[in-house]
Amino acid sequence: MAKDVKKKKGKAKLKAIRTEMKAASVPKKPHVSPLAPEAFPDLPVIGGLSFASAAAGIKYAGRTDVTLMSVAPGASVAGVFTRSATRAACILDNQAKLRGAQDASAGAAIIVNSGNANAFTGARGLESVRAVTGAVAEAMGLPETRVFSCSTGVIGEPLPHDKIVRAVDKLVGGQDGAGIAAAAKAIMTTDTFPKGASAEIAGDGGQVRIAGIAKGSGMVAPDLATMLVYIFTDAAIAPDLLQRLLSKLVGDTFNAITVDSDTSTSDALFLVATGASDAAPITDLRSKAGRAFNDALRGVMMELAHQVVRDGEGATKFVEVRVTGAASAADARRVASAIANSPLVKTAIAGEDANWGRIVMAVGKSGAKADRDRLTIRFGDIVVAEKGWRSPGYDEAVTSAYMKRDELIIAVDLGLGKAARTMWTCDLTHGYIDINADYRS
Amino acid sequence: MAKDVKKKKGKAKLKAIRTEMKAASVPKKPHVSPLAPEAFPDLPVIGGLSFASAAAGIKYAGRTDVTLMSVAPGASVAGVFTRSATRAACILDNQAKLRGAQDASAGAAIIVNSGNANAFTGARGLESVRAVTGAVAEAMGLPETRVFSCSTGVIGEPLPHDKIVRAVDKLVGGQDGAGIAAAAKAIMTTDTFPKGASAEIAGDGGQVRIAGIAKGSGMVAPDLATMLVYIFTDAAIAPDLLQRLLSKLVGDTFNAITVDSDTSTSDALFLVATGASDAAPITDLRSKAGRAFNDALRGVMMELAHQVVRDGEGATKFVEVRVTGAASAADARRVASAIANSPLVKTAIAGEDANWGRIVMAVGKSGAKADRDRLTIRFGDIVVAEKGWRSPGYDEAVTSAYMKRDELIIAVDLGLGKAARTMWTCDLTHGYIDINADYRS
Repeated sequence: MAKDVKKKKGKAKLKAIRTEMKAASVPKKPHVSPLAPEAFPDLPVIGGLSFASAAAGIKYAGRTDVTLMSVAPGASVAGVFTRSATRAACILDNQAKLRGAQDASAGAAIIVNSGNANAFTGARGLESVRAVTGAVAEAMGLPETRVFSCSTGVIGEPLPHDKIVRAVDKLVGGQDGAGIAAAAKAIMTTDTFPKGASAEIAGDGGQVRIAGIAKGSGMVAPDLATMLVYIFTDAAIAPDLLQRLLSKLVGDTFNAITVDSDTSTSDALFLVATGASDAAPITDLRSKAGRAFNDALRGVMMELAHQVVRDGEGATKFVEVRVTGAASAADARRVASAIANSPLVKTAIAGEDANWGRIVMAVGKSGAKADRDRLTIRFGDIVVAEKGWRSPGYDEAVTSAYMKRDELIIAVDLGLGKAARTMWTCDLTHGYIDINADYRS
Repeated sequence: MAKDVKKKKGKAKLKAIRTEMKAASVPKKPHVSPLAPEAFPDLPVIGGLSFASAAAGIKYAGRTDVTLMSVAPGASVAGVFTRSATRAACILDNQAKLRGAQDASAGAAIIVNSGNANAFTGARGLESVRAVTGAVAEAMGLPETRVFSCSTGVIGEPLPHDKIVRAVDKLVGGQDGAGIAAAAKAIMTTDTFPKGASAEIAGDGGQVRIAGIAKGSGMVAPDLATMLVYIFTDAAIAPDLLQRLLSKLVGDTFNAITVDSDTSTSDALFLVATGASDAAPITDLRSKAGRAFNDALRGVMMELAHQVVRDGEGATKFVEVRVTGAASAADARRVASAIANSPLVKTAIAGEDANWGRIVMAVGKSGAKADRDRLTIRFGDIVVAEKGWRSPGYDEAVTSAYMKRDELIIAVDLGLGKAARTMWTCDLTHGYIDINADYRS
């Protein structure tokens, strides 16, 4: 009896806590992340491309939720995708289509919907992909192998593909060569701002332009081809060369960011080269033009990846984690990832607390080779710990002042070798809990 | 100019958000976790043991922060410790002392302080350990190799070991054979309740008693010998047998829990067998008495491990993650750990949201072999997904009602093999952020 009464009291207490949590779920999610860039950039128009968006009513009525990106004949398409074992039907379909030789004589198209991820939707998932890509192929006169698709949103709900199919004619009729900014908005889900970046370089005999857009805010973790990212260039470059370049560059850019250590079922990064530039084709990545293109593309990918972190769910700090002096590349990656994903490191940053002991903890748990007495930890330029000990010059007031910045650098030198790894992450705040404790409702 | 103004506006906005966060950092941490057991259990007195606690003023004045546990001659001591590469000086010292052959003719002692972890404190860390264990050895007439020590609290601050040394005489003079409940309280840090568990079984010719205490609430992750745990028994059992038993049982108990995926620098689990029972010595773990002792010890370890999760920082839900049907033991562990550590799974549970798509996500990211069409996901007895698809009988209302319980079971059958793994975790709430964004102040 007494036990029962106590149990009931416990339950009443729990209920009170939850009611309090709900009432007090502040701060409200800001309309735009405080770390957002000032404005969406002016992206150059890439010849051979057009965009169209529509409201298909997939999850909410009246919200733009379908985007068509179409590519003129002669383009090369490359892609990298999530390695999740439960990846969505559209990802499996895209991978199959990109594995074959590319028929460059045909155009191509990518159709993207938000509001539903079409992931873990059984055999019906693939039927939905075929219905949507088939409708686009028919309306545009393209072979089905050149129509790609991406879906983002809730996992496990059937995709109402009929609604998308019904919107296809409108999308095909409403295409606009300058519509990339509208497309960046249409692919957003929990994002608080549209993400774009660009570069222009001199090629052999003409300008080469690169323009990219991305969406991503939560369920963002490295070791994947991440989120939804579409990068376009008017460079002329063969598909296999384009794919090799993309696969190489993704490691230090999109695969080096994390918001919450969780990996999406639906991540996709497409890189399309239309060849519309006057510049000569790029045939060798080691040539001057090849290297310039590599650097420019890397810059665009890095900028988009950073924008995803700046829009991390609930983020109020943008954090660069620099690991140097590791015994191996794998160790550098382990340490950077342990720091960038640690809930205790990320909550300390949210609280502007210079709790460098938690960096020591993260190095220790990473599984990498580490020697306490060779470790150096810096916050920005401030050496906080070295030689197995708090730095003799450590000044709590100076370090605390540094922690108030909204862009922070945490640098760890392991003092053991030459391997290095830089990653980008954000803090873990009440905002993240608010957004994710109630995502589906 | 305009850029500068915009930047300033952004900063003002950020500052406003942080002020709002601070003002609104509700709910207040409850005085006692809502998941706590009703009361601290009546632990049996184990012959050959005594306890004493004192306030040494390590971090705060007037708070009990040092505990001495002393053991009569003839006892066996076993221990498992954190595998962190940045583990504390006392852990290194304990490991060295337990590696040698044990001189059972001497007594033994364990001295524990809270308020300071003595981790990442350079060469001075070991000096502190020697000062403290040396003082205990001298005051009690023990060889130094039989004096063990544990420190828990902030990482990277010098341990004020003089304060502990000054308290030693008082501790040695104030010992109490029935003081285990007071010791359970004295070792607490962010814990909201003291943790204890016990068992009594019939041995060969007499009763055998087991009594254990633990502390732990955050920085708790599996794959270590975890937190601070002290388990005592009056069984007679040789040191090597005791160590073998402990190392075996830790895998499915303390190494199968997680609060936040972060691993402490200071975790230690000691198991002391005093031999004070009338029962015959246990010399074979496969004997009837050996098996009964194994089961009773496993029960005590499991109960203490669960109490740590129930006191997880900010926890309002106690969650059992059951993985079955995995292709290998490593895969079962990967999937259980990916689910139990996922911020998105844990925030959904906090929000009482039956967002099983996030379980699919966690299975997918784990790196384990998985086949969408063979996966079955259950919340309690409710089948939510099977055969690559939401279950045909899925009922959102029924599942949502289940999510309101404070004890939940998430069961995933991979349908590929026979390997299984069960882990225990808690939800991720505003309470966790509150506690950890401001731990040092």
